[in-house]
Amino acid sequence: MNAAFRTTFEDPLSAARTGLLETPHGTVETPAFMPVASQGTVKGLTHAQVESLGAQIILLNSYHLLLRPGVEAVAAMGGLHAFISWPKPILTDSGGFQIYSLSPLVRVGDEGVQFASHLDGARIVLRPEDVVDLQVRMGTDVLMCLDHFPPYPYTEETAKESVRLTTAWARRSKARFAEHDTRQQLWGISQGGIHRDLRTRSIEALMEQDFSGYAYGGLGLGEPKTRLFETLEHGNGLLPRDRPRYLMGMGYVEDVVEAVALGVDFFDCVLPTRNARNGTLFTSRGRVAIKNQKYARDGRPLDEACACYTCRNFSRAYLRHLYERDEITSSVLNTIHNLHYYLDIFRKIRHSIQSNSFNLLKKSLISNAAQKEETT
Amino acid sequence: MNAAFRTTFEDPLSAARTGLLETPHGTVETPAFMPVASQGTVKGLTHAQVESLGAQIILLNSYHLLLRPGVEAVAAMGGLHAFISWPKPILTDSGGFQIYSLSPLVRVGDEGVQFASHLDGARIVLRPEDVVDLQVRMGTDVLMCLDHFPPYPYTEETAKESVRLTTAWARRSKARFAEHDTRQQLWGISQGGIHRDLRTRSIEALMEQDFSGYAYGGLGLGEPKTRLFETLEHGNGLLPRDRPRYLMGMGYVEDVVEAVALGVDFFDCVLPTRNARNGTLFTSRGRVAIKNQKYARDGRPLDEACACYTCRNFSRAYLRHLYERDEITSSVLNTIHNLHYYLDIFRKIRHSIQSNSFNLLKKSLISNAAQKEETT
Repeated sequence: MNAAFRTTFEDPLSAARTGLLETPHGTVETPAFMPVASQGTVKGLTHAQVESLGAQIILLNSYHLLLRPGVEAVAAMGGLHAFISWPKPILTDSGGFQIYSLSPLVRVGDEGVQFASHLDGARIVLRPEDVVDLQVRMGTDVLMCLDHFPPYPYTEETAKESVRLTTAWARRSKARFAEHDTRQQLWGISQGGIHRDLRTRSIEALMEQDFSGYAYGGLGLGEPKTRLFETLEHGNGLLPRDRPRYLMGMGYVEDVVEAVALGVDFFDCVLPTRNARNGTLFTSRGRVAIKNQKYARDGRPLDEACACYTCRNFSRAYLRHLYERDEITSSVLNTIHNLHYYLDIFRKIRHSIQSNSFNLLKKSLISNAAQKEETT
Repeated sequence: MNAAFRTTFEDPLSAARTGLLETPHGTVETPAFMPVASQGTVKGLTHAQVESLGAQIILLNSYHLLLRPGVEAVAAMGGLHAFISWPKPILTDSGGFQIYSLSPLVRVGDEGVQFASHLDGARIVLRPEDVVDLQVRMGTDVLMCLDHFPPYPYTEETAKESVRLTTAWARRSKARFAEHDTRQQLWGISQGGIHRDLRTRSIEALMEQDFSGYAYGGLGLGEPKTRLFETLEHGNGLLPRDRPRYLMGMGYVEDVVEAVALGVDFFDCVLPTRNARNGTLFTSRGRVAIKNQKYARDGRPLDEACACYTCRNFSRAYLRHLYERDEITSSVLNTIHNLHYYLDIFRKIRHSIQSNSFNLLKKSLISNAAQKEETT
């Protein structure tokens, strides 16, 4: 029934796979990293720069767009793609994460979520149906269901309640989505934390609704990594092979490659972009805190092995100077580098899966990520 | 003696002319606009963007670079061009303007200037010779002499004293510069405000030193525009035709075209870049304050007549959204537009002089600049 996603290669030594997701705005190769463009731009970059770095899909934030400029304004401008002039695929999250983490006065009931805008305190009520409708109106390629999750650490009881709500909301989301005649696709989000039974229940209930894709919500919040990976392994064993799997909000390279090895296809994270603005840069030899005095006269590029615009043209000394002077261009050049670093890793991951060398790449990426500071 | 500059066309109806300035890092077509890159970057842009906008020379700030990262650091990195990775010509100002406007505890004597760093209060002494030496060491293409000017409004007495100091310092600067074996060039700065006799005295004293170029300092500080233009007309009548003339720090388009008509060749100003970051955008139909609510659903480009990346791709609604969200990308896209607008005007100015239509262009630019707000 859903031909939007198909796998192309499968790694013989792990559950890693490559695939293609078809959307109304083009095809996305997976495993894919989605740069975060919450308000309609990857912070600091032009779309031309983001495209030339090789991004095939970006993530926008329903919560932020809902508050400003508002769904009506986006729709009046012809939808998100026209409004922000980005021609490629867009995934919007449901806003759940921001509601629970940014908004004051959140009240959750069976009907949906009531919360106050973190900007002006205005009361907003969002039912799962509303969240589907607003994403349909904005014209995003991939919509996410409204989910619920408890803050970590949580009891099994609260995790159970989250699964109950998320399941009920997913059912209503799917029903509402079916009323729209659209080529967009709706993905479900599973909850249940690292509780095997709860996660199983959540995923199986979603699968009954036959979503176009399945996401893992409520992970990466502080739980032990081994439990996280067990959850992914178990969950992916349940999920259909012909649907994309999306691990929401997690971006450490060492976690990404483990998750890819377990069969995850989609990732998003603010890590490369936010760190770039804070002067923390990822290199093939470990992290570089560019403000460090020791770079003041370092004429080498950030990463000798990197082919990005920043590394091809500028020294660490200059990058440090711009960072220390609080120049906007510092954020621009750093973001170009960090985003290139991430998107390049995903290119390498896809290539390695297609050439039977994923396991080797995985080992080398994990060993490099273990270097908290650059080795020389 | 100095073949670095030559005029190529002269407007028959005014003193406007086109010319070519040869430097160790390439040729600059004049009249030229020098984008301001105080700390080594045009704020918000990559060098690639600045180059693709057509900038042929940029202005860096000796005062800022002297304080941080320091001349030693720049020299250790191989000079300014290598340090910032900008391959084209660089002009550095002498730092005088920043010393008088930013530094506390400025003491001026015949010997030079003593001032406190506005960063940490450290006492710094700069003699005219030091200012030459530091610019030579940084490897800039065009060096400016240390000058002195009084704050406006000033008495004739203080203006006279400024001319005396500036003249003496220019002589010492030239003498020191002659000790260096370099293809760099040193330009003198005239003072004297709008006092005809003082300006004459200042310019004639500079001409005795035979500088490679002549700048107007101490203008654009609040004096009546008619007096400013009289000063330029008078001064240019004195200056040799085969040397470039530079009006420092002035950038309103209506002033620029008048100054070009009077024979000025070089300009620099923070106006396009600073205004861009503040959301004030220059268009062929007047200024646009992009934060204005009326642009919230305006799907038109900023300027239908503009060929810049921003206007070719984005709506006013999106630009307003980015500005209101305080996105870095707002500064980037706005700066691309405003800088394109300026550099394009200079391209048009040069072309019009070469095709005998400068007077027509001048009228249209002045009439457009008179529109303080966009006309529709």
